[in-house]
Amino acid sequence: MNGSEAMVQTLLAGDVDVCFANPGTSEMHFVSALDRAPGMRCVLGLFEGVASGAADGYYRMAEKPAATLLHLGPGLGNALANIHNAKRAYSGMVNIVGQHAWDHIHNNAPLNSDVEAVARPMSNWVKTTMSAAAAPLDTAEAISQARSTPGRIATLVLPANCAWEPSDPGHYSTAPAQTAAAPLNDTVIALARLLSDRKTAEATTLLLGGRALRAREATLAGKIAAHTGCKLASEPRNPRMERGRGRVNVTPLPFPVDGAVAMLKDTKHLVLVGSAPPVAFFAYPNKPRMIKQPDCEVHTLATLTHDIEASLQALVDALGAQNTAPAQLSTGPIITDLPTGAPVPEHIGTVIAALLPENAIMVDEAVTTGRQFAKVTPQAAPHDCIDITGGAIGWGMSAAVGAAVACPDRKVFAFLGDGSAMYTVQGLWSMARENLDVTVVIFANRSYKILRGELANMGGPEAGENARRMLDLDRPYLDWVSIARGHGVPGVQVNTLEGFADALRIAAKEKGPRLIELVM
Amino acid sequence: MNGSEAMVQTLLAGDVDVCFANPGTSEMHFVSALDRAPGMRCVLGLFEGVASGAADGYYRMAEKPAATLLHLGPGLGNALANIHNAKRAYSGMVNIVGQHAWDHIHNNAPLNSDVEAVARPMSNWVKTTMSAAAAPLDTAEAISQARSTPGRIATLVLPANCAWEPSDPGHYSTAPAQTAAAPLNDTVIALARLLSDRKTAEATTLLLGGRALRAREATLAGKIAAHTGCKLASEPRNPRMERGRGRVNVTPLPFPVDGAVAMLKDTKHLVLVGSAPPVAFFAYPNKPRMIKQPDCEVHTLATLTHDIEASLQALVDALGAQNTAPAQLSTGPIITDLPTGAPVPEHIGTVIAALLPENAIMVDEAVTTGRQFAKVTPQAAPHDCIDITGGAIGWGMSAAVGAAVACPDRKVFAFLGDGSAMYTVQGLWSMARENLDVTVVIFANRSYKILRGELANMGGPEAGENARRMLDLDRPYLDWVSIARGHGVPGVQVNTLEGFADALRIAAKEKGPRLIELVM
Repeated sequence: MNGSEAMVQTLLAGDVDVCFANPGTSEMHFVSALDRAPGMRCVLGLFEGVASGAADGYYRMAEKPAATLLHLGPGLGNALANIHNAKRAYSGMVNIVGQHAWDHIHNNAPLNSDVEAVARPMSNWVKTTMSAAAAPLDTAEAISQARSTPGRIATLVLPANCAWEPSDPGHYSTAPAQTAAAPLNDTVIALARLLSDRKTAEATTLLLGGRALRAREATLAGKIAAHTGCKLASEPRNPRMERGRGRVNVTPLPFPVDGAVAMLKDTKHLVLVGSAPPVAFFAYPNKPRMIKQPDCEVHTLATLTHDIEASLQALVDALGAQNTAPAQLSTGPIITDLPTGAPVPEHIGTVIAALLPENAIMVDEAVTTGRQFAKVTPQAAPHDCIDITGGAIGWGMSAAVGAAVACPDRKVFAFLGDGSAMYTVQGLWSMARENLDVTVVIFANRSYKILRGELANMGGPEAGENARRMLDLDRPYLDWVSIARGHGVPGVQVNTLEGFADALRIAAKEKGPRLIELVM
Repeated sequence: MNGSEAMVQTLLAGDVDVCFANPGTSEMHFVSALDRAPGMRCVLGLFEGVASGAADGYYRMAEKPAATLLHLGPGLGNALANIHNAKRAYSGMVNIVGQHAWDHIHNNAPLNSDVEAVARPMSNWVKTTMSAAAAPLDTAEAISQARSTPGRIATLVLPANCAWEPSDPGHYSTAPAQTAAAPLNDTVIALARLLSDRKTAEATTLLLGGRALRAREATLAGKIAAHTGCKLASEPRNPRMERGRGRVNVTPLPFPVDGAVAMLKDTKHLVLVGSAPPVAFFAYPNKPRMIKQPDCEVHTLATLTHDIEASLQALVDALGAQNTAPAQLSTGPIITDLPTGAPVPEHIGTVIAALLPENAIMVDEAVTTGRQFAKVTPQAAPHDCIDITGGAIGWGMSAAVGAAVACPDRKVFAFLGDGSAMYTVQGLWSMARENLDVTVVIFANRSYKILRGELANMGGPEAGENARRMLDLDRPYLDWVSIARGHGVPGVQVNTLEGFADALRIAAKEKGPRLIELVM
C-alpha cells in the first residue's frame, strides 16, 4: 500500500466519501488510489473554483466535509476565492493539494511554488506531509480539523513521493478538533435579567448567525422574542437558513450600510447568537464602518464555537418561555396571485416565493436582483437558503453542484446574477456530468449592476466610456442558452414574469439540470 | 485630485496605458479615475484569470507592462495561476489590487483577507500603499519594478481610502529597477577557448531561453553553432520564440523526461544563455530529476539579467564567427502537400505550418496535441510563438487576448487543448467585446490526455470508473461552437484535416474573433 492508498482509506474511514477534483500529473498516484476505492464519489470540475465551491455547498447541506483534490500552487490559487467563501461560512473542507516530490522541490520546476503560502490566507489549518508513513495520520488530522465546531478549512499539501512511497493505513481515528462548548450560564442568567425589563427588551435585538438560523434554533429565538418583546435579525448573508411558511423567519440586515444602520437604530443592546458585531460590507468615505450605534451594548449569548441550540434553550428556560408561541412565525397565505409583465426585482421574488417547491434548496447569489427576496421568501414553502457568505462572487454555480451531490432527493435552485455566474461557469458541465437536479436561474441584467450603483453613489458624473466598458456586460450580450448547451445543459430564455413562472413550474416538475435565463 | 487619479496619471506617464480589469466596489474610485483618463485602454475580463493572462500575453508582445485591476484577496486569488505563468515567463506586470480602507481592515468584513499574503507567492514585489499621498510614488515604483530586465510581477495593494483621499500626481519618473547587465567578458573568453576545440564543441550544447530565442539572438547562436560545431537547444517552453522560414530554428527540449535526457545524452558542456539548468517538469519514481548527465559541466554565458544579444555577439566576436552563415537556418520548402483525413497530432502540425500566415502570433497551449508541432513549425512562415511557461493550464485563451491587444495588426492563432481552454473560457467574451483578430483552435480530444498518459506510464491496471471520471471530458462532450456563440464568438466544428485546413484558410483571410473546434 502506498501513501495515497493509505490516505484514501483514512478519508473513507473518517466518513469523507466525496472528492471534488481537478487533478494534475503530481496527483496521479492519488487518482490511482481513488480509482481503487469505489466507495469514494469523485466529481470532476473543469476549473478548481468549481471543486472548492462545491465542497462548500456540500458541507452546508451534508453537514460533513468533502475532500477536494487540487494541482499544486496554481490549482489551489484557482480554488482560493471559493475557499474564502467557505471559510466565511465556517464550512469544513479537506483540501488535498499536490506538490512536487521532496527531492524535486529545490529544482524549481516550472510549476513550482510555495504551496503552503498560497494555502495559508484562506485556510484554518495547513500542513505539508513529510513522508508516506505520515500521510494517513496527517489526513486524519485534516479530517478532525474540518469536522470542528464550527467547520474549518484544512489544507494538506501532498508531495508526490509521499503519495507513491510505501505506507500503511495506520487506522487513525478522527474526532472533531473542537466540539461545541456548553452554554455560558452566567451570561444566560444576566441576559434573562436584562430581557425581563420590557422596555430594555424592546430595545434589544438578537442577532442570529450560523446554526442559529436553522428551524429549531430560530424557533427558540422566536419564543424569546415573543416572551420578552426583543427583536430578531440575522447577519446579511448566512451559511444556511431554514426558512418559509410555518417557520420563524428572521430578517437579515440589509447589504447597504444605510439600511442596516436604520434597522439597528433603536437597538441599545445587541445580543450575538452565533454572529459577529455587524460591520459595513465595504467602507465608504462618509458612512459608518460599524452598523450598530456607538452607545449600543454588545452581549454574547453564544459564539459559533458554542452549542447554539443549547444556549438558546437555556435562555428560553431562564425566561420561562418554554410554552410561549414564537414570534415572527410565518403564517401568511400561499401566494397564488402571481405578478406578470416586466421582470422587476420586486416581483421576481414573489414569483419565486410562490413556485419554489417544498424542501427545495435555494442557492442565493442573485446580488442586486436578490435584494428584495427576503421580503417574500418567508411566504414560500419551507426550504433551505444557502448564501454567499464571503462576498467573492462566482460561488453559487459551484455551491449548487455540491448541494445537489449532498441532497440527491431535493430540488436545487441556484439564483445567480449573470456577472457572478460567469466566474465558475464551468460548474454547468459538472451538473450535466452528474445529472444533478439543479435549476440555474440567470438574472441577466447585463451589467455588474451592484458596481453601477456604487459608482452612482459616489456622486460623480454619469459613467463615461471607460467605466461603462468595465461595468456593463454588453457589446456583446452573453447568450446563456448557448453557454448552457455548450456545457450539456438544456436552457431557455424568458423575458417576462409569466414566462419565468412557466419555466419555474416545469423545473419544479422535471428532474435534471436546466438553465433559465431571465432577461431583465 | 485623489489617490486614484494620481495613480492613473502616474501609470500613463510611465507608459502603462492598458488596464486589464475585473473591478469591485473597493476599486470604484479607481474605476472612476480610469473613466476620466481616455488615454487608458480598459479591457474587461469576466474572470480575473483572463485579466492576468492577458497582461502576460500583452507584455510578451508589446515588451512593456500592462496594469491589471483586481478586487481584493479573492479576486487576486482568481488571477494567481496566470500570474504564476507570467512570473515564469519573466513578464512585467503591474497588479493593482483593492483592499478595504485602513480603518475598516480590522473590522474583518466578509471580503477581508490578507491580500499581501495572497500576492506574495506569485509576485516579485509586493507593497501596500500607506496613504493617498504615497499612492503615485508607489505606483511609479511598481512600474519601475515591472520594467526590469527581466520583467517582474509588481503587486500594489490599494486600500480604498488611499484611492479616495486627496493626493497630487507628484510627477514621479519611472526607470527599470534592474537594467540588463553587460556581458561577462571572462566567461566569454573562457567559452571561446572551450569551443575552439572541435571535439569539445561537438559535445557542447548552447541552451537558449528568454530573449535568446528572438530572431537576432538566435542568429548569433546559429553562427556560433556553425563556426564551432556545438549544438543548439532551447528550454521546453519559452516566453516568445521568433520562428519559421529564414530564421535560425532551435529545437526545444521535449516535455517527457526520457526524450529530454536523450537529447542531452552526449552533451558534456551545457552553456546557459538566458536559461536555467533543465529539470524534469515533474518527478517520477524511477526517472531522473535533472535532464543533463551528472558529469556534464554547466557554464553560464548569460542569465536573464544580462544583455543576451550583447553576450552572444561578444562570443561571436571572440570566435571570429561574424561572417559565418548560421546553422539551423530554416530553408526547407513551403509546405504545399497537405495531409488529409483523420486529425492525428503528427499531421495537425503540418497543416498549421502550411497555413499559418506570415507574421502571425501563435499561442501554444496545445499540450499533448502540440508535442509534434516543433518538428514542422520551422517550415512555417516567420511568426512568433508564445508558450505556457509556468505549466498552469488555462493561460492560452487569456494570453491571446493580451497579444491581440498588443499587436492589433497581426493575426493571433491560439492553439488550445479542450481541457486547458475551459479554465479561462471567459476570455472568448473579451475577444468579442474588443473585436480582437484571434482565431481560437480547440483540439477536442475530450480528455485530460496528458494525465491519461501519465496514469498509463505508472504501469497500473487500465483506468477504472473513478479515474475515467476525473480524466475524461465526456458524458457529456463539450460543444465548443455553442460555448463560443454564447460568448459572442462565431465558431465552426471540423473533424478532418481538410476541414481544419479550410477553416484555417478562412481565418487567415477574415478579421475578427472566431473559434475552430477540431474534434479528434
